[in-house]
Amino acid sequence: MAAASRFRLALVQLSVCANKQENLLRAARMVKEATAGGAQMVALPECFNSPYGTQYFGEYAESVPDGPSCKALSEMARDNSVHLVGGSIPERAGETLYNTATVWAPDGSLVAKHRKVHLFDIDIPGKIRFQESETLTAGASLTTFSTPWCRVGLGICYDLRFSDMATLYARQGCDLLLYPGAFNMTTGPAHWELLARARSVDNQVYTALVSPARDTTASYVAWGHSLVASPWGEVVASTEADETVIYADIDLEELKRIRENIPLGKQRRLDLYDTVQKV
Amino acid sequence: MAAASRFRLALVQLSVCANKQENLLRAARMVKEATAGGAQMVALPECFNSPYGTQYFGEYAESVPDGPSCKALSEMARDNSVHLVGGSIPERAGETLYNTATVWAPDGSLVAKHRKVHLFDIDIPGKIRFQESETLTAGASLTTFSTPWCRVGLGICYDLRFSDMATLYARQGCDLLLYPGAFNMTTGPAHWELLARARSVDNQVYTALVSPARDTTASYVAWGHSLVASPWGEVVASTEADETVIYADIDLEELKRIRENIPLGKQRRLDLYDTVQKV
Repeated sequence: MAAASRFRLALVQLSVCANKQENLLRAARMVKEATAGGAQMVALPECFNSPYGTQYFGEYAESVPDGPSCKALSEMARDNSVHLVGGSIPERAGETLYNTATVWAPDGSLVAKHRKVHLFDIDIPGKIRFQESETLTAGASLTTFSTPWCRVGLGICYDLRFSDMATLYARQGCDLLLYPGAFNMTTGPAHWELLARARSVDNQVYTALVSPARDTTASYVAWGHSLVASPWGEVVASTEADETVIYADIDLEELKRIRENIPLGKQRRLDLYDTVQKV
Repeated sequence: MAAASRFRLALVQLSVCANKQENLLRAARMVKEATAGGAQMVALPECFNSPYGTQYFGEYAESVPDGPSCKALSEMARDNSVHLVGGSIPERAGETLYNTATVWAPDGSLVAKHRKVHLFDIDIPGKIRFQESETLTAGASLTTFSTPWCRVGLGICYDLRFSDMATLYARQGCDLLLYPGAFNMTTGPAHWELLARARSVDNQVYTALVSPARDTTASYVAWGHSLVASPWGEVVASTEADETVIYADIDLEELKRIRENIPLGKQRRLDLYDTVQKV
């Protein structure tokens, strides 16, 4: 099989603490480990340099791409000669804060930047209340980027719930959807894996979700369970809650076979409906 | 709780044989049983009056709503004073054949008619090949109907794979999506339950799938496993492969609570994307 039809993706389920410098060093170690494990593309989790919480975002926020966390990410990509999805960090742009993912090429250059477009505002009485919009502003555009193997659609956590976005990414030619995210102990067990598998089967793509490791002492406790779902809807890589690296071989020939067997792309009734991008 | 916020749905996982008259009598018995079990809405499976196969559709096809199967459905609805989704039957309209679902009011009048809009053409080598388009023509419109409790979006089997359709139904106010369908022994275990749960969670609606019972002597072996998924993505009623009736209480207050807790409807970024109906 030609090298270009297959590549190894690693998801780093990082332990994140209150010390930013320690988070950056830990991320660098884990990216190095993932690359040593054969990964050609590595992804870090949502909010990998900061605890997750509206009370932290302002303090940890940095300029993108000029801040120290982006500098560290650029170096990780270059030092390991790897494609790196830098999870997300709180971004400051003037007075405004975003939850922002960056993507880095093996030469250390910035490839793409995604500001979370759907802010995480939920309120399940007795279970969990979180209002990202108390401090963050939502992004204004969707984000895809190209790699030597395929186009990738990028979202952050709550973006995963909005199927139109995944539909658009797939129709724009993405073969992999990648979401750094941190579901919680209520929505995690209920929806995390289901949503990944559904995005994969509906759109005949691979879907990767990368969470921080679980810290039960944190104010927001992440579900963990980073995973990769295949275009057939199978979970081809997964883990539980602890810090670890998981690997999946993204097989674009397999993806092509599935699209031939069940040719949804040709069978859509675009005369009856469509999903459209407005910006 | 007000009566109008809750109703009982029954799915009839019918055994279907080659004798049309026997299928109609059996359906009538099961609809009566379901109503005796408290159902206010009853649904039959795809192709409930005929074996499923391109070689059968022409022979079993009838005019809608003037044929004997529609006459029998109208009587079942009236005799039991129940809302009846008459699964689907092969419909003949002039030279053209469709896979058609009909919906009947408790007074026996026809409420809605849906011609399957996505024909089931798949080819998974060594597993299953089926080409509905060899004999059938696809319908030309989407179909929702109202009941005393809520609006319902109607699809048939393969229609379930196309998420835009479900998205549109939900945005048009449907609280329940109902798909008579017959997945097979390859796609059934892989995708049937996943797709139902995904439609429910993405759209915050109930989703009901009603299959014929499994007949291992048939040319097309149905997966069975009729089920109802809640808007939280839980399977609230299900069965395996044999003939049976399953019941689910559709709780519109619960649905409203979930939409308040996770307000996806207000959070969609319709400034960035939208799913649109074209006809």
